[in-house]
Amino acid sequence: MNVKLIARITGVTLLVEAGALLLPMAVALYYGEALSPFLITICLLLAAGLGPSLLLRPQRQFFTREGFFTVGLIWVLMSLFGALPFWLSGQFGSYVDCFFECVSGFTTTGSSILQAVEGLPRGLLFWRSFTHWLGGMGVLVFTTAILSSLGFSSNFLIRAESPGPVKSKLVPRASQSSKILYTIYLALTVIQVILLRLTGMPWFDSLVNSFGTAGTGGFSVRNTSIGAYGNPAAEIVMTVFMLLFSVNFAVYFLLLCGKLRQALRSDELRFFLGVVAISIAAITINIAPGFSNLGDAVRAAAFQVASIISTSGFSSVDFDLWPEFSRMLLVVLMLVGACAGSTGGGIKCSRILLLLRSARREIHSIIHPRSVSVVRLDGEPVSETALRSTHCYFIIYLFTIFVAALIVGLDDFSFGTTFTAVVTCISNVGPGLETVGPMGNFSGFSALSKLVLSFCMIAGRLEMFPIFVLFSRNAWKKS
Amino acid sequence: MNVKLIARITGVTLLVEAGALLLPMAVALYYGEALSPFLITICLLLAAGLGPSLLLRPQRQFFTREGFFTVGLIWVLMSLFGALPFWLSGQFGSYVDCFFECVSGFTTTGSSILQAVEGLPRGLLFWRSFTHWLGGMGVLVFTTAILSSLGFSSNFLIRAESPGPVKSKLVPRASQSSKILYTIYLALTVIQVILLRLTGMPWFDSLVNSFGTAGTGGFSVRNTSIGAYGNPAAEIVMTVFMLLFSVNFAVYFLLLCGKLRQALRSDELRFFLGVVAISIAAITINIAPGFSNLGDAVRAAAFQVASIISTSGFSSVDFDLWPEFSRMLLVVLMLVGACAGSTGGGIKCSRILLLLRSARREIHSIIHPRSVSVVRLDGEPVSETALRSTHCYFIIYLFTIFVAALIVGLDDFSFGTTFTAVVTCISNVGPGLETVGPMGNFSGFSALSKLVLSFCMIAGRLEMFPIFVLFSRNAWKKS
Repeated sequence: MNVKLIARITGVTLLVEAGALLLPMAVALYYGEALSPFLITICLLLAAGLGPSLLLRPQRQFFTREGFFTVGLIWVLMSLFGALPFWLSGQFGSYVDCFFECVSGFTTTGSSILQAVEGLPRGLLFWRSFTHWLGGMGVLVFTTAILSSLGFSSNFLIRAESPGPVKSKLVPRASQSSKILYTIYLALTVIQVILLRLTGMPWFDSLVNSFGTAGTGGFSVRNTSIGAYGNPAAEIVMTVFMLLFSVNFAVYFLLLCGKLRQALRSDELRFFLGVVAISIAAITINIAPGFSNLGDAVRAAAFQVASIISTSGFSSVDFDLWPEFSRMLLVVLMLVGACAGSTGGGIKCSRILLLLRSARREIHSIIHPRSVSVVRLDGEPVSETALRSTHCYFIIYLFTIFVAALIVGLDDFSFGTTFTAVVTCISNVGPGLETVGPMGNFSGFSALSKLVLSFCMIAGRLEMFPIFVLFSRNAWKKS
Repeated sequence: MNVKLIARITGVTLLVEAGALLLPMAVALYYGEALSPFLITICLLLAAGLGPSLLLRPQRQFFTREGFFTVGLIWVLMSLFGALPFWLSGQFGSYVDCFFECVSGFTTTGSSILQAVEGLPRGLLFWRSFTHWLGGMGVLVFTTAILSSLGFSSNFLIRAESPGPVKSKLVPRASQSSKILYTIYLALTVIQVILLRLTGMPWFDSLVNSFGTAGTGGFSVRNTSIGAYGNPAAEIVMTVFMLLFSVNFAVYFLLLCGKLRQALRSDELRFFLGVVAISIAAITINIAPGFSNLGDAVRAAAFQVASIISTSGFSSVDFDLWPEFSRMLLVVLMLVGACAGSTGGGIKCSRILLLLRSARREIHSIIHPRSVSVVRLDGEPVSETALRSTHCYFIIYLFTIFVAALIVGLDDFSFGTTFTAVVTCISNVGPGLETVGPMGNFSGFSALSKLVLSFCMIAGRLEMFPIFVLFSRNAWKKS
């Protein structure tokens, strides 16, 4: 273990978190709220982070398992510290509740233990939504730079920069990629804030809702989420931006380079848009009888489909009251999730596409046992190793859901509540059905369940493998 | 398409069904009930089956797709005809209901549309349970002879007969295997009937409950299933035999050959027994507070675990009233299912074991990217092709569940009812949770849902691939 380097990276991250806390503290100052929860947390972060961040000359050698360990550690530590302002305020319940809320923030999930958000201090609400925005940035770097340098996930963006399969050259370019990603991320957020403000939403709400959209998180500052504003224009802006933030950021990069054709050639993008269009149509037909006019039904369906498949989790109406077909479809969309290389969660459209094509190939191979066929994505053959990894991703994802559901089942909620609570957490969506529906919350669960659900949020956010590597005995043997 | 041979095999099967109907007709005669439903059905079967079965000199050449088509066709046709006695009696509702009930019988599922079974003619109840027993026989031949000759599934038994990988020599031996299987199947059934009678259960009930156990079906002749007898000894006999019929029949074959050691060396058997033991212990602890003494809790837990993992679906108490942990565990056991080469359904223990080992290997390969490791079963390496096939089996199984749940969701039952109805049907178990719980039934679903659930039962019973091959465009192209 390269303890020095891990300590240094972690230390720097804690200092960054201390810096990030200045923003919500400024908000608290502006609204004349208590500053001590922020001040104390910042002091603790400085105390914890300053020493390790100054460590000199750590070795540069870094193993995969150490990278995974560091990333996991950072997400947990940032949540442990980030929960402190909530806890110190005395308005968010037990420390486990605050930790759950903060994990939900940084993993851009949006599941909440709060029974009511209106009336809470604005500084804390700002911090809560800001964790989404920070988490979204972290995910972009993690999936595009770290994971893809290991050959995982869609390295679409980096492929666009350096054509050819020269993997070893990717790492030095990672920081350059990150800059481009951050610029796109920041620009889209700013545009959304302005558009929301133009629809008449207050500045504060425009800002926090844009944080929630950009990170595909979904924390809201109203008890009934976006529905509370009664603002159709804002709902449409949110719908569009939730979808925009679900798309692989490489598409925007290609658009910026003027490569429109290449951007639109993505199989994943087409699959994603197809699923969105079909889901909106199906739900509209299913819920139309409950609406006085078709336009409202389309808007509600489009908002909810965009919110769930992007894994944001905002709501404009209580979709838990919708017919079972629409509810089931939303649960399926939770599992499908957004595009790879976005801030969204879930299994990811590209993986679902590979699973479907892989299954089709398998059936084909029964009919023609001697034929050798490859699975393709964007016209290029996908290696058997990558396919196997995708299969195992799906297997681990589903097995984790059922094991977690067993433990959460100990709290004796209904089957629908238990199962969808786990699905929505592992896919980083936010709301589930029944007790954890859009008008419900996670406060009724035991501390054990909240920790298991927090684990699911982190495991889902870090694309499963890194977390399970940490639990593998093999990972810690001397090599 | 070798139409002649397909017609001939199908014709012979229909004649066999006509012969099988003589038994319930004899029961009806004995109890002085109406014979016409049976007589009319037998006549129709003879009319339909006699011509094709006499077709002369069909070509012997047979493609995989034709084998699958024939098996699928047989299961559907037998159910279409087998539903007639129910329908003609006028006591089972619409023809779709009767078809659902008969598919549920032949696929050894045990899901029922009947709101009450007590008071129905005994001849019909006998036929209903007898379809389980016939279906169980069909499955044994299908999975051990037909599928394994294609390289699928566990060809454990046939390996035991002819060591070495000479696949082409397997088919001539298939009929020999079938004879051994049938003898074991019949012998176990007879022993169970006698033991049940000794516990004080009436002859008729002993017989039909043994049919349901042997086929791992689960149709009962009492409204509250096995609980109705208030007979602990019978529950214990049922528990033991449900487990016995969940074990790979090759184990009994090896035992008969005196190869005790080889029989017990099976990884799948150990995994199965381990899951059973842990599940019984966990459920006992979870439900104990609801029982006056621990013995009753253990007996209820053991009965239900055996019933669900064997995919029989009998019940001794209303497990839908149990705490959510136990309910969730039972749903997980529905998915796991019994051992390959048994009459049980579900994904099968050997596949679950391969999926777990495959996932572990994948995590290992992240830590040691350059190491090449194989997945083993019973000490022998499993080919990558077999693993890939197992992965795709799991993928297709889960995708089918979610697609079917969407359609069944149109009936607007709760999430728990909708989801578990599909799981219990595809895994050939019988009861689910909530509305389709052990004290509930499937009568409330629409005709569309009943047909979709019938499809799931057949797809699950025929191990998914054959059914999906039939839906593949490729299968019908001239080769």
